[in-house]
Amino acid sequence: MLNVLFSAKDQAWDDYRVPLETAFADAGLTVNLSRDHAPDVVDYIVFAPNGPVTDFSAYVNTKAVMSLWAGVETVVDNETLTQPLVRMVDDSLTAGMVEWVVGHTLRHHLGLDRHVAGQDGIWRDDVYPPIAAQRPVTILGLGALGTACGRALTALGFPVTGWSRNPKSAGGMTCLHGADGLRHALKEAQIVILLLPGTPATENTLNAQTLDLLARGAFVINPGRGPLIDDDALLAALDSGQIKHATLDVFRTEPLPEGHDFWTHPNVTVTPHIASTTRPDTASKIIAATIVRDQSGLALDNLVDRSAGY
Amino acid sequence: MLNVLFSAKDQAWDDYRVPLETAFADAGLTVNLSRDHAPDVVDYIVFAPNGPVTDFSAYVNTKAVMSLWAGVETVVDNETLTQPLVRMVDDSLTAGMVEWVVGHTLRHHLGLDRHVAGQDGIWRDDVYPPIAAQRPVTILGLGALGTACGRALTALGFPVTGWSRNPKSAGGMTCLHGADGLRHALKEAQIVILLLPGTPATENTLNAQTLDLLARGAFVINPGRGPLIDDDALLAALDSGQIKHATLDVFRTEPLPEGHDFWTHPNVTVTPHIASTTRPDTASKIIAATIVRDQSGLALDNLVDRSAGY
Repeated sequence: MLNVLFSAKDQAWDDYRVPLETAFADAGLTVNLSRDHAPDVVDYIVFAPNGPVTDFSAYVNTKAVMSLWAGVETVVDNETLTQPLVRMVDDSLTAGMVEWVVGHTLRHHLGLDRHVAGQDGIWRDDVYPPIAAQRPVTILGLGALGTACGRALTALGFPVTGWSRNPKSAGGMTCLHGADGLRHALKEAQIVILLLPGTPATENTLNAQTLDLLARGAFVINPGRGPLIDDDALLAALDSGQIKHATLDVFRTEPLPEGHDFWTHPNVTVTPHIASTTRPDTASKIIAATIVRDQSGLALDNLVDRSAGY
Repeated sequence: MLNVLFSAKDQAWDDYRVPLETAFADAGLTVNLSRDHAPDVVDYIVFAPNGPVTDFSAYVNTKAVMSLWAGVETVVDNETLTQPLVRMVDDSLTAGMVEWVVGHTLRHHLGLDRHVAGQDGIWRDDVYPPIAAQRPVTILGLGALGTACGRALTALGFPVTGWSRNPKSAGGMTCLHGADGLRHALKEAQIVILLLPGTPATENTLNAQTLDLLARGAFVINPGRGPLIDDDALLAALDSGQIKHATLDVFRTEPLPEGHDFWTHPNVTVTPHIASTTRPDTASKIIAATIVRDQSGLALDNLVDRSAGY
C-alpha cells in the first residue's frame, strides 16, 4: 500500500480524484490517495504550486514530488523541497499548446480579427495576403513545447527560427543560441512566440531593446511565462506601432487584475492561462507510470534540475 | 515568336504583365504578350472568367486556354471553348488555402472569437478546452486542396474524414465516397469544410437534410464554391443552433451584396473570396512551363475534363 498525498486546490481534487484512482488501479498499484496523510507516511506527493503544501521538510519518507504543472519556477527555489521533483510532460498538454500557438499565429498571419470583429458589409478583396513562406516566425525556447510548435509551424510553410540558451537542433528550423543568437533570432522577425522557462535568466527577455529588433508591426505571442516580457516596454512598443498586436496568455500577476492596461489596450488580446491545460485523464496516467518506474528502481524521467531552475 | 493573349480584368494585367514576361524569358520562350491580338494569330490564351473573351470560336489556331483560376465552372459549359483548357494548380495557391482553412478551423476549435471580440476584463479560466483529437473534422472534396488541408489538420491531431464522389485515398484520413459515404462523413462531424468543385452534381450538398446530420453546434467552413450550400437552409440551421457558426469565403453572387443576411447574421463570418488567391509570380512560372511542355509535344497536366465539369 502506497500513501499518495494530493496537494492542489479544491477544484483540482474534484477533477483528479477519480482519474488518479483509475490510473493507479490500471497500473496495478495499491494506493491510498488522500488530501491529509500524516507527512511522515507519505510515499509520493501529487503537487500543484497553488495547493496547501509549501513546507516539505516533514515529508521525510517521500520518494518524489510530482508536479501537475509543466512550469515549476514557483517551487524550484523552495529550500525545504529536497525530494526529487518531477515536471509534468504530457503529450496532450503539448498538443493543446501547439493548437493554441498555431491558431493565434495563423490568426495574426491571416489578419482574422478584421473579419471576426470588423464585419461591416463592405467587400474588400484588394488585400494581397502573403503566404506563410513570406512570414518569418521566431520561437524563443526549444523545450518540448517550443520544439513541437516549431515543427507544426514549419509544416505549414513558415520559416521558423528557434532560440535556446544552450545549443540545440530541431529539424526544419534554424536553431540559434546565446546572446548573439538571440539578437539574430529576433532581427526582422514578424511573429515572436515566447516559450522559455520562467527563471531569473529569462526575465524581461523581451524589453525595449529586443522589441526594437523585430520587424516593424510584428506580433508578440506569449504562452510561456509573464515575466519573460517587460510589460511597460511592450505597452510602449504597442503605442508606437513597433508591435502591431500582442496575444498574452500568461502574466506577472494571475488572474490579470481588472483594469490592467492589457485588458483595455485595443491591440492586446488576453487569454486566461488556457494555452495549455493539464488534462486529468492523461496526467493521471503519467503520474501512475512515474510511480511504477520509481517502485521498479528505474531512473525518473523529467526530473527538475534545480541549478538550471527547470 | 508565340502570340499569347491575356484576357482577364484590367487589375490582373497590371499584376501579371511583368511576372509573365519574366517567366517567359526565364523559360527561353520568345513571346509577344498582348491584350489585343487578332484571334486567328493567337497561340495561347491566359484566361480569367471575368475578362473580355467569352466567345472562343475565332481562336482557330489557339493550342490551349490556360486559366488563372483553379475553379473553371463558369467557363466549362461554354460551347465555343473547344481548345484544351488547363486549370491553375499552383503550390502557393494550395499553401494559401491550407493556411486559411487551418486558421479558421483552429479559430472555431479554440473559440478565439470570444477573446478577439469579447474582451471584457473578466478572467474566465474555467472552460476546459478540448484537444483536436476530440474534434472530428470532415472535408468534402479530396482534390489537391482538400487533400492538402486534410493532411495539415491530421498533422495537428484532428481526426479527419474526407469525402469525394469517386473512391480516393489520402494518408492519415478516413476516406469515404458516394451517397452513403456522404451521410457517414457528415454524421456527428463538428467541423465541416467544403472544397468540392462547383458542378451541377455538387449544388446544395449542404442542405436542410445534410446539415441535420452534423453534430449539434457544428461549424461550417466554405472556401469552395457558393452553390455548394443551400443558403436558406444554412440560415435556418444557424437560427436553430444546429450550426453554431459559418465562415464563408464564397457566395452565389460575388461580391456578396450589401445587406445580405450573411453580412448581418451574428454567427456568420464573411471573407471576400480570399482563402486562396493566385499569386502572379508563381502562376506566371506555371503558365510558362505549360507552354514549354506543349511546344515540346508533351501531354498537358491539369487539363479540364469537360464531361465531369472540372
